[in-house]
Amino acid sequence: MNEYENYLQFAKEIANEAGKIMKKYFIRKDISSYKGDKTIVTLADQEINSYLIKRVKEKFPTHSVDGEEEQFGSSKYVWVCDPVDGTAMYARSIPVAVFSLALVIDGESTIGVIYDPFTNQLYSAIKGQGAYQNDEKILVNDYDLSDMKSVSHYDMWPNAEYNIFPVLQELGIQTYFVGLGSIIRACSCVASGEFILAIFPGTTHKNCDIAAVKVIVEEAGGKVTNLFGEEQRYDRSIKGAVISNGRVHNEVINTIKKHLEEK
Amino acid sequence: MNEYENYLQFAKEIANEAGKIMKKYFIRKDISSYKGDKTIVTLADQEINSYLIKRVKEKFPTHSVDGEEEQFGSSKYVWVCDPVDGTAMYARSIPVAVFSLALVIDGESTIGVIYDPFTNQLYSAIKGQGAYQNDEKILVNDYDLSDMKSVSHYDMWPNAEYNIFPVLQELGIQTYFVGLGSIIRACSCVASGEFILAIFPGTTHKNCDIAAVKVIVEEAGGKVTNLFGEEQRYDRSIKGAVISNGRVHNEVINTIKKHLEEK
Repeated sequence: MNEYENYLQFAKEIANEAGKIMKKYFIRKDISSYKGDKTIVTLADQEINSYLIKRVKEKFPTHSVDGEEEQFGSSKYVWVCDPVDGTAMYARSIPVAVFSLALVIDGESTIGVIYDPFTNQLYSAIKGQGAYQNDEKILVNDYDLSDMKSVSHYDMWPNAEYNIFPVLQELGIQTYFVGLGSIIRACSCVASGEFILAIFPGTTHKNCDIAAVKVIVEEAGGKVTNLFGEEQRYDRSIKGAVISNGRVHNEVINTIKKHLEEK
Repeated sequence: MNEYENYLQFAKEIANEAGKIMKKYFIRKDISSYKGDKTIVTLADQEINSYLIKRVKEKFPTHSVDGEEEQFGSSKYVWVCDPVDGTAMYARSIPVAVFSLALVIDGESTIGVIYDPFTNQLYSAIKGQGAYQNDEKILVNDYDLSDMKSVSHYDMWPNAEYNIFPVLQELGIQTYFVGLGSIIRACSCVASGEFILAIFPGTTHKNCDIAAVKVIVEEAGGKVTNLFGEEQRYDRSIKGAVISNGRVHNEVINTIKKHLEEK
């Protein structure tokens, strides 16, 4: 097993454990204690994040961890993690939430895993070696925006730094936009050819959301840039992201540039 | 058991069987045969719809059925059904899809069930007798649009008769909009206090989507009207729907009226 395969194996082990933790709290959640949800979710997030840090310290003591909940170290090898993406849905007993982990080397996403414990789908990629869903090679689709099978995804929330509603309104004439509440779950669907596009306005510390997506979607033949069509590093804050099957990428970027100014 | 309890018991039996059919096809689906998805989904839809018609003919031979896939009869007692709501997600292995069935009597939703087989959540109501989730009484929340816990839901697709994007843009400053691809799944979340609002632009034959929602959400203390704040019948096409916790209803209707004209 070479070095990269070793990293991927490690990432898959963490994903497997993270999935168990997610399912444990999902099942235990008492639907009637709404106020308790936040605590429960935080417990799942924290437990996964802490577990990751412990395992990285044991196995790759010179590496860093950039988890959404907790960080460690300052190496150029950074394990970038979103312990539970889709927390708002997860906390409401909606089984749309995933674990995501990438090894980013000097800003570049090199290894990525995404795990959906509810459907037992594990997406993975090593840069240059293709993308897989549970050991089956996956490819993006080649649909256009106006294809009848085209499904696109958006995320938007109050006070997001970039307001993408005008973009949705313009593109929504052609494509069916859903918003699952988990950008990473949506991007796994781009990688496997279920969706054609995802638009993400997140910036500060939102590299945790896109780091694994970057290598998995591109290894599946798609394209991932910031909102303005540019490459970006994944070991620091980002300028949003456009995740696509490649074919629709330029059209989407041009539409965004009509409505948004780069900050 | 009185007449209405008898109807509800019947609806729950159908829901249970529908859930089994949904899970059977969800599991059998081969993720790599994307083009096959449509057929598989249609099979699930049709199998549930046919089963419903068969059972209604046996048990309530004078009643009608208005299923999304198939209709039968012309009684003022109509079983209004959406066999699989969220088909686009369901067909993509995303476990966000529900079965929905209402008994509409002379246009009025009187009995309703919604069943999510992926989380085993059964929502039900008899008009005047409260709403339940798996035999536990449920209530809508009392959050305002700008509450930090406020989650709202939208559906929108190319060529929808009413374009609600401008409404989303205006309200999206206050509330976090998701779009799960299943309006009925979202409305079960309004009934149980997880979401505050859902906006639905569907019209032709879309009574199938809102008939059960109407009685369940209102029995949980919420409000369901057409897009313009008016009551409507659920045995024929509708003018969209606003489904809310009641508290935010007027504000949402007023915003819609600023942007849309009643057709």
